[in-house]
Amino acid sequence: MADKPEIKGITVKKNVDLSKWYTEVITKSDIMDYSDVSGCMVFKPYSYMMWEILQRFVDDKFKKMGIKNCYFPLLIPEKFLIKEKEHVEGFAPEVAWVTEAGNTRLQERLAIRPTSETIMYPSYAKWISSWRDLPLRLNQWNNVVRWEFKNPVPFLRTREFLWNEGHTAFATKEEADAEKEEVLDVYLETLKNLMAIYGSIGQKSEKEKFAGAVSTHSIECFLPTGKAIQGPDFHHDGQNFAKAYDIKFQDKEGRTEFVWQNTFAITTRMLGVMFMMHGDDKGLIIPPPIAPVQIMIVPIFKENNKKIILKKADELKKKIEKHFRVEIDKREECTPGWKFNEWELKGVPLRLELGPKDIENNQAVLVRRDDGKKSAVKVSDVIKEAEKILKNIHDKLYKQSEKNFKDSIVEVSTMKQLKKTIKDKKMALAPFCNKPGCEDWIKEETEGATTRNIPPDKKVEKGVKCIQCKKEAKVMVYIAKAY
Amino acid sequence: MADKPEIKGITVKKNVDLSKWYTEVITKSDIMDYSDVSGCMVFKPYSYMMWEILQRFVDDKFKKMGIKNCYFPLLIPEKFLIKEKEHVEGFAPEVAWVTEAGNTRLQERLAIRPTSETIMYPSYAKWISSWRDLPLRLNQWNNVVRWEFKNPVPFLRTREFLWNEGHTAFATKEEADAEKEEVLDVYLETLKNLMAIYGSIGQKSEKEKFAGAVSTHSIECFLPTGKAIQGPDFHHDGQNFAKAYDIKFQDKEGRTEFVWQNTFAITTRMLGVMFMMHGDDKGLIIPPPIAPVQIMIVPIFKENNKKIILKKADELKKKIEKHFRVEIDKREECTPGWKFNEWELKGVPLRLELGPKDIENNQAVLVRRDDGKKSAVKVSDVIKEAEKILKNIHDKLYKQSEKNFKDSIVEVSTMKQLKKTIKDKKMALAPFCNKPGCEDWIKEETEGATTRNIPPDKKVEKGVKCIQCKKEAKVMVYIAKAY
Repeated sequence: MADKPEIKGITVKKNVDLSKWYTEVITKSDIMDYSDVSGCMVFKPYSYMMWEILQRFVDDKFKKMGIKNCYFPLLIPEKFLIKEKEHVEGFAPEVAWVTEAGNTRLQERLAIRPTSETIMYPSYAKWISSWRDLPLRLNQWNNVVRWEFKNPVPFLRTREFLWNEGHTAFATKEEADAEKEEVLDVYLETLKNLMAIYGSIGQKSEKEKFAGAVSTHSIECFLPTGKAIQGPDFHHDGQNFAKAYDIKFQDKEGRTEFVWQNTFAITTRMLGVMFMMHGDDKGLIIPPPIAPVQIMIVPIFKENNKKIILKKADELKKKIEKHFRVEIDKREECTPGWKFNEWELKGVPLRLELGPKDIENNQAVLVRRDDGKKSAVKVSDVIKEAEKILKNIHDKLYKQSEKNFKDSIVEVSTMKQLKKTIKDKKMALAPFCNKPGCEDWIKEETEGATTRNIPPDKKVEKGVKCIQCKKEAKVMVYIAKAY
Repeated sequence: MADKPEIKGITVKKNVDLSKWYTEVITKSDIMDYSDVSGCMVFKPYSYMMWEILQRFVDDKFKKMGIKNCYFPLLIPEKFLIKEKEHVEGFAPEVAWVTEAGNTRLQERLAIRPTSETIMYPSYAKWISSWRDLPLRLNQWNNVVRWEFKNPVPFLRTREFLWNEGHTAFATKEEADAEKEEVLDVYLETLKNLMAIYGSIGQKSEKEKFAGAVSTHSIECFLPTGKAIQGPDFHHDGQNFAKAYDIKFQDKEGRTEFVWQNTFAITTRMLGVMFMMHGDDKGLIIPPPIAPVQIMIVPIFKENNKKIILKKADELKKKIEKHFRVEIDKREECTPGWKFNEWELKGVPLRLELGPKDIENNQAVLVRRDDGKKSAVKVSDVIKEAEKILKNIHDKLYKQSEKNFKDSIVEVSTMKQLKKTIKDKKMALAPFCNKPGCEDWIKEETEGATTRNIPPDKKVEKGVKCIQCKKEAKVMVYIAKAY
């Protein structure tokens, strides 16, 4: 029937085929759509609202730290892009080029920003001349394009994505280093307190660091289905870009020095990580702090009691809407059961049922999305109880995510152990020499596993050898297959 | 001396050479920078903060109206762009084309969105099938590129700019029309209550309406230097795009109908209008509600009293910062006079001076940016007084803008009068047949004046003839040279 909404249940189990499950969940839950440009997706309001909540959360913290927002052009002249050699080698294969405007062929190709170092730093060079101009801590919330030729996956690997890109310049390395802790803390808190995702901070290997950076730190996550996935990252650029773009300042003693720089980002990819992390065979589970709808009121009515029940539902919504993001599903063409399914599919953390019996008893029924448990609650207690349950849902999701990460770790010392660990869909912690060539071999031997990051609290013991080359190990590194 | 900030006074008078004045003011006040891509500018934090305040203001109102944010791809396949004939004719000459990615030549050119109808509406066609899917009211805050070949002017005419683009679809023309009032009210309120700009709502002429629309309404402004300038606009598309993109729905009676659509936008151009509207020979004047810094505290100290005065300044800031966006200028390398100049140049609406005498008398001195008037105020009264003054500054700026608009209007009935009005840098209100050909002639005769919009409250009297062709006039229209 064209007039009745079709049923949209999930037909694939998450632990049977993660990819198919993911595709079904994200398309059926009305959070995105494919576009006709391969690899570019549409963020429908339901997912875009989550991005807005994340943006506000991170942005408020950045502003308190003294980081200011700005906006640089989308298009970068080719001559700027190629100034930092390693950087351009990293990005050139993925750059989308504008070559024509109207009917005119441009004299120089313009790159759509894959990241904005190369358009921002020529300005930094103009703006910075004295120690008084430092630190310069700027950020942008914008869109970037990286024309990857790998198979695109909505949210997780898209040719255009949204992100923040922080670009800062300091007079000393110490100050630049201090920012690292500060920014990574903001990102870790965002993952934990907003998205209920456990993440582990560590340094990237030499091979996996950002093109042009001295060091990259990342927050790594681990999906319940046995794959690692990278979260936000932070790059310390040292003076690499400063030298390439001639960003110098006169210090207090009158000496001319290059600045020290950092860049950092969180992207819409995190939404995909969150969907994969928490979802189940019924669909999405959205952690309450980032859920566009935290409580969905489903009034249960028939023609004869519709008026009174909808009135009560309105009253209840009014009572609690200062505390929660709450909506009422008043549709008459769907049964309550159909609505339950729909909001479970969309991962609304708490459902509030309100039927004739509830109204008689001056109560409402709260149903948790995560475990389906129901509780009848006096109307006067709804705010308090819902707050408690939402907090509990969040804590439980986070603990699951943390347990899942920690349970996945297997400390290994031989290649045989490493291979078994990867085959078992676990994450190895292995001694490693941190040489790019060795890393290539590990990937080959394990059929695709890569180093994730180097946890700061796991020191390599003296005399321990690299799991691959048997030369002296420099670090302990996580190794896993990544999504 | 490299170590001392250079003095940055404005050397051109606003009423002598508006363009030169504007260029000096926007570059010296540290709100923008030019980029190496001609026509693409850098929004430095000071102007970007204003955009963020505007965005928040408009966005909150849109959300209350039920408009939801989303995000569609930046890149539009050529085959989509060309579906609506008038639309593509309007935009094709200004489209920036992506033709290569990495080392690969793309099979189909991709347009960087000059506006998103052509990428959004294929999705709308998929999403809308029943009256239950309507209205669909979506909005994006994003960047667009229009490769104009006219001389670029920062904020006012840039090849990339930031905006909101609302795109809505309704079951009936009546609903679509009702949205017009609602949205134009939001924009008018934004201009009035946030930017202190008087704007006049009216319909655009047939020639000036949006490419592909049935009708366009705009908010027109008038600069104190005798030029009109267009603000936000609203387009009713009728069923034009619905037919081109096949956006149909089944109504309650089971009939298949095309949807009725609107689109609407406010852009970063408005910041430029605001700078031109209110600035004076000392620099910018930023209306308090949109000022990133509403009060700048300038402590007046010497080496011997520095500690106590800065302490008092900190205390005062703490006391008032819940009420205002306030900062302290503690720099020691600049004199108070230099600081006064700088914050006047940047248009901070209120300066608070705090010197040894003030501390003795438990007072502070408030100095208005608009007229330079000073008043000594008891510390306990600072919040109340500052609120009063800031409100008064805003009202005064708005009234000036309104008076300036209204004083500019000259009702004309002959071409001779029209020519004189335009020469006098005024705005004519003239009877007009609303034919594009006639409008071309008017532009020719007046050496560049264009119709602005058709005020709804000025009806054309029966029998009155078009000022140009002498056939029957259909409307009274504003005609002026525009920036």
